[in-house]
Amino acid sequence: MIIVLKSHATDADVADVCRRIEAMGHRPHTIRGELRTVIGAVGDDRGKERLRALESLECVESVTPILQPFKLASREVRPESSTVVVDGVVIGGARIAVMAGPCSVESREQLLEAARKVKAAGATVLRGGAFKPRTSPYAFQGLEEEGLKLLAEARKATGLPIVTEVMEPDKVELVAAHADILQIGARNVQNFSLLKRVAECGRPVLLKRGMATSVQEFLLSAEYVLSGGNPNVILCERGIRTFETSTRFTLDLNAVPVMKRLSHLPIVVDPSHGTGHWEYVEPMAKAAVACGADGLLIEVHPRPEEALSDGPQSLKPERFALLMKSLRPVALAVGRD
Amino acid sequence: MIIVLKSHATDADVADVCRRIEAMGHRPHTIRGELRTVIGAVGDDRGKERLRALESLECVESVTPILQPFKLASREVRPESSTVVVDGVVIGGARIAVMAGPCSVESREQLLEAARKVKAAGATVLRGGAFKPRTSPYAFQGLEEEGLKLLAEARKATGLPIVTEVMEPDKVELVAAHADILQIGARNVQNFSLLKRVAECGRPVLLKRGMATSVQEFLLSAEYVLSGGNPNVILCERGIRTFETSTRFTLDLNAVPVMKRLSHLPIVVDPSHGTGHWEYVEPMAKAAVACGADGLLIEVHPRPEEALSDGPQSLKPERFALLMKSLRPVALAVGRD
Amino acid sequence: MIIVLKSHATDADVADVCRRIEAMGHRPHTIRGELRTVIGAVGDDRGKERLRALESLECVESVTPILQPFKLASREVRPESSTVVVDGVVIGGARIAVMAGPCSVESREQLLEAARKVKAAGATVLRGGAFKPRTSPYAFQGLEEEGLKLLAEARKATGLPIVTEVMEPDKVELVAAHADILQIGARNVQNFSLLKRVAECGRPVLLKRGMATSVQEFLLSAEYVLSGGNPNVILCERGIRTFETSTRFTLDLNAVPVMKRLSHLPIVVDPSHGTGHWEYVEPMAKAAVACGADGLLIEVHPRPEEALSDGPQSLKPERFALLMKSLRPVALAVGRD
Amino acid sequence: MIIVLKSHATDADVADVCRRIEAMGHRPHTIRGELRTVIGAVGDDRGKERLRALESLECVESVTPILQPFKLASREVRPESSTVVVDGVVIGGARIAVMAGPCSVESREQLLEAARKVKAAGATVLRGGAFKPRTSPYAFQGLEEEGLKLLAEARKATGLPIVTEVMEPDKVELVAAHADILQIGARNVQNFSLLKRVAECGRPVLLKRGMATSVQEFLLSAEYVLSGGNPNVILCERGIRTFETSTRFTLDLNAVPVMKRLSHLPIVVDPSHGTGHWEYVEPMAKAAVACGADGLLIEVHPRPEEALSDGPQSLKPERFALLMKSLRPVALAVGRD
Repeated sequence: MIIVLKSHATDADVADVCRRIEAMGHRPHTIRGELRTVIGAVGDDRGKERLRALESLECVESVTPILQPFKLASREVRPESSTVVVDGVVIGGARIAVMAGPCSVESREQLLEAARKVKAAGATVLRGGAFKPRTSPYAFQGLEEEGLKLLAEARKATGLPIVTEVMEPDKVELVAAHADILQIGARNVQNFSLLKRVAECGRPVLLKRGMATSVQEFLLSAEYVLSGGNPNVILCERGIRTFETSTRFTLDLNAVPVMKRLSHLPIVVDPSHGTGHWEYVEPMAKAAVACGADGLLIEVHPRPEEALSDGPQSLKPERFALLMKSLRPVALAVGRD
Repeated sequence: MIIVLKSHATDADVADVCRRIEAMGHRPHTIRGELRTVIGAVGDDRGKERLRALESLECVESVTPILQPFKLASREVRPESSTVVVDGVVIGGARIAVMAGPCSVESREQLLEAARKVKAAGATVLRGGAFKPRTSPYAFQGLEEEGLKLLAEARKATGLPIVTEVMEPDKVELVAAHADILQIGARNVQNFSLLKRVAECGRPVLLKRGMATSVQEFLLSAEYVLSGGNPNVILCERGIRTFETSTRFTLDLNAVPVMKRLSHLPIVVDPSHGTGHWEYVEPMAKAAVACGADGLLIEVHPRPEEALSDGPQSLKPERFALLMKSLRPVALAVGRD
Repeated sequence: MIIVLKSHATDADVADVCRRIEAMGHRPHTIRGELRTVIGAVGDDRGKERLRALESLECVESVTPILQPFKLASREVRPESSTVVVDGVVIGGARIAVMAGPCSVESREQLLEAARKVKAAGATVLRGGAFKPRTSPYAFQGLEEEGLKLLAEARKATGLPIVTEVMEPDKVELVAAHADILQIGARNVQNFSLLKRVAECGRPVLLKRGMATSVQEFLLSAEYVLSGGNPNVILCERGIRTFETSTRFTLDLNAVPVMKRLSHLPIVVDPSHGTGHWEYVEPMAKAAVACGADGLLIEVHPRPEEALSDGPQSLKPERFALLMKSLRPVALAVGRD
Repeated sequence: MIIVLKSHATDADVADVCRRIEAMGHRPHTIRGELRTVIGAVGDDRGKERLRALESLECVESVTPILQPFKLASREVRPESSTVVVDGVVIGGARIAVMAGPCSVESREQLLEAARKVKAAGATVLRGGAFKPRTSPYAFQGLEEEGLKLLAEARKATGLPIVTEVMEPDKVELVAAHADILQIGARNVQNFSLLKRVAECGRPVLLKRGMATSVQEFLLSAEYVLSGGNPNVILCERGIRTFETSTRFTLDLNAVPVMKRLSHLPIVVDPSHGTGHWEYVEPMAKAAVACGADGLLIEVHPRPEEALSDGPQSLKPERFALLMKSLRPVALAVGRD
């Protein structure tokens, strides 16, 4: 930590801050500048929130951490990229993993049709929501357990492993019984009770970045799962909230190379939620692969105009097939498959 | 809903969209402009997400709702302002309700000292966290049930009702057994499972706006609690995330008059989290009262520089007492107490 | 500056960075931590952008300035608050300065009616735009020089000094010939050519914060005017751009106490542009005064529904008179007038 | 425009609004819904700001435009993509145009070395700033006219056309005398006086999106140039300001397909400013090409660690050469060159 003192700080203030730093187990190191005294608190400051409390002293101007606050998620701790393997599908390997399917599981027919078609087009994981986080209490809330059973049936029919969302700690076991990958949605990225529970469940976790989650906070949420004993975390960029309204969210592809530098975890990108419009899914999917994403999450619905959720951003199966075809050369161009 | 068609839309497209609108139970009303055809879908569109799916049709440019999507939270449905009464304390009445106390319950001594001092200064509700949502898994996570018991003890000692956070559905009953008001934190504002559970528990709910939650989404989260059968919802503005970094968040006081216009629910403001710096708490508390807030949520810690969480934004008890004194004339100036 | 090296930095890297710091005229001070080496560059780093270039070295992780980059605008350099006096009107004194009038000067009648009414209600400065920055080239662009003459006439008629916008360096002289205060609009806050020119013109400058301008950048723009020889700068908060759309911009009142702490310059607030809706002007004007603003900028139009610009946010004269009446007790409550 | 009335609007209110709509030259079309009356104002509403003033009527809830407000920039008016040709270099054609060079022209040696090396690596336009918009008045402000002459010399030496920034209306002629493309910087995107002047100068204009400029506003700024008689506008996405701080700005690649859909103008992307870190330039450059950009703007400096501006985001010439090599297969993969 770097503690910057105010310009009027006295020698007694400096001594007091140094004493407090030592009391918290760090070694103070004072630099007296022309206009400011700066004290470095030497020692591992990751997660050491307590030093930040020094900012409440009247003589302190600011307290700034030096180290990234996460450990297990960091590339410094583990230089080589990690992979998550689900039923033979490798996420984080040379091959781009494409997870596709409807936003919500709406019916047996809808799901099976979508599953068969995304499989035929080359998807390697089936996505579909049984428990749905909906902004309005009056909107369709998902088929819940019935939806999970349909997903299991679709897996049987197609061989595709399943990724689906879990929304509360008490449902983790139930969802894990049917799904191969547990998705933590953007609105739950800092639902720490839920993160702790999925850390214990043994299943790989697809963790979506929240719409106002900084990269640093996002990796700390991943750290909750990793430090809870579950090494199989897949990060997912799905759009952040900005002033721009021509897209539903602003898909932040910059986060892909940033997180690749900071972390060893595999990263997938969701251009469907990120843009909110089916017409932008293909260009942004290509861009995601070009800048280093390990996979994609894409919404496909047999009849988007009748979808119970997220119709505007869903691709028809034929468009998805075209997207898969046009993705291939881009993947090859950046050394992927 | 207003459905705007693309400029190349044909008569057959118009007919198709109208047919779909009717199939969803609305009455289409077509306006042919010089450059665009616009179709109004007449009928109650609150929560009618399905109409939005029409945006996935190739002939449709955009689908825009006309009505605010919430009902029970809306002032249209209930023109007079509502109040929440807790143990004789009225939130939403003429008197500004001040909820004060430490961020985290850290020890018996710390809590009781804080409680006695905020009571002496004029606070009417005691705040304090037993379950703490922390960005880092390595940070202090709260005293949990032990903290709840200390809060109950502080209530006994001071007579102040308690507001404290609940973080997961399964803990609602436990927290409700000790607390008078259940707080839903900013990170859980769209934790719909939790919202449904607190709707059933009978206790008043203090609902904090998320850092990227629009006013409309916020009122929809309130609607989850209201439509679940719990009319006692207190809205809390606590800062949104913007590009500005000189404050920890950007306290959005505009939301106070906006929500007062849209909703009948009482609104409190948290300038401690909203700014993240103790020096800004007093001016922003005054501003909150001046623009119409019904109450304040303020962090007070006997020794902020040793706080286990949020030290930089906590007031010392003496400063809090000064703040209370200087708030009074502002409250009177806007016809409050 | 604090230069943080990457974890793999070698002793040779440390020596190289130190050598470069010295070559730039600073004194390096190395702190070797457990996980990182940190080098403090001691010396006045205000405006010393060159040190930041060290971030391009492969061994450097980040370069962080310690000092605020402005000098003349800073309260450290000048602890007492400064005032700007225009024709006997003091901005930054005990009395709240209210600058009111129409967004655009549209006609002689409109302006004179507005001027007389805002004067009667207690405004001390008349605002009105002759040169209008309009998002669309097809929108009304202002009466230009004709508008300036009408403003001068209104001053004669009412005795109110005039504040009006100047948009380009070459018009500074012309506008200064008619106006008492030159306004730099939000879109020109980083139009450095214009800032340099108004620095030379002798007239007080009302500098509006841009919609994406950080407080630090804003004070650096003020520094352009101050360092160019013009000490009469009035800062104006007028709303920043965030994700929230229920207001046109997000009026950032937090910036008032933040800038009061960092700078000695007077600060006025524009709740008309900040919210974009007349219904929110009164509560936010009160809040601005409550949190320490020295003045207000308020749009008043005799017939807002016919305004050529910014009608939705303009008050009718009667409402403005009511606002002035209700502001007084708030001003008194915070020790102002 | 769609005018939504408040729920309490009377028949007289409806009649009054309709009368006003007619007076403004539009045809009103009333839809009476269950909860709201909505009035469509039929007619070309592009740039018709006046209708918006109706929002100030007490009976009106909101006024929403239906059409995009720009005309000449829109793809509706000109369905085929336009190109800008400079000295034989086509921007907007099959070949990706790469504009590269130093942020600032610092010296003859620096510029010529950079120019020769970017040319050797395959760049087709040379960039370099002579007039520099700097946040701090104490930072290097550019070599000004001397810099322009060096740029002209570099063009002679390499044959590369020049793009350089112009910051004020009065310098347009001077800059146009030396440069092939005039750049309008992000901070001047709504400097309408400058836009009007470059519209008249005959040179192609590279218009950078501001850090808080919506796509719609950006295209309106382009419209200023187009409607002023200059059809040669190149749009440039260079990062917007969001809450995320791990990159200097958030490069908004979504804007590429969005603007491709809305407008026929060519689009280039600046990953150097967009991310602010040289390590992220290559992945984001690839992503930009993959999602449809027509060109790139990349900062290259022989010795970034000694740069007088923007060192952290500048590539060394060797890295730039590698980038050019790795870009080629991505361009081919999306049917470009």
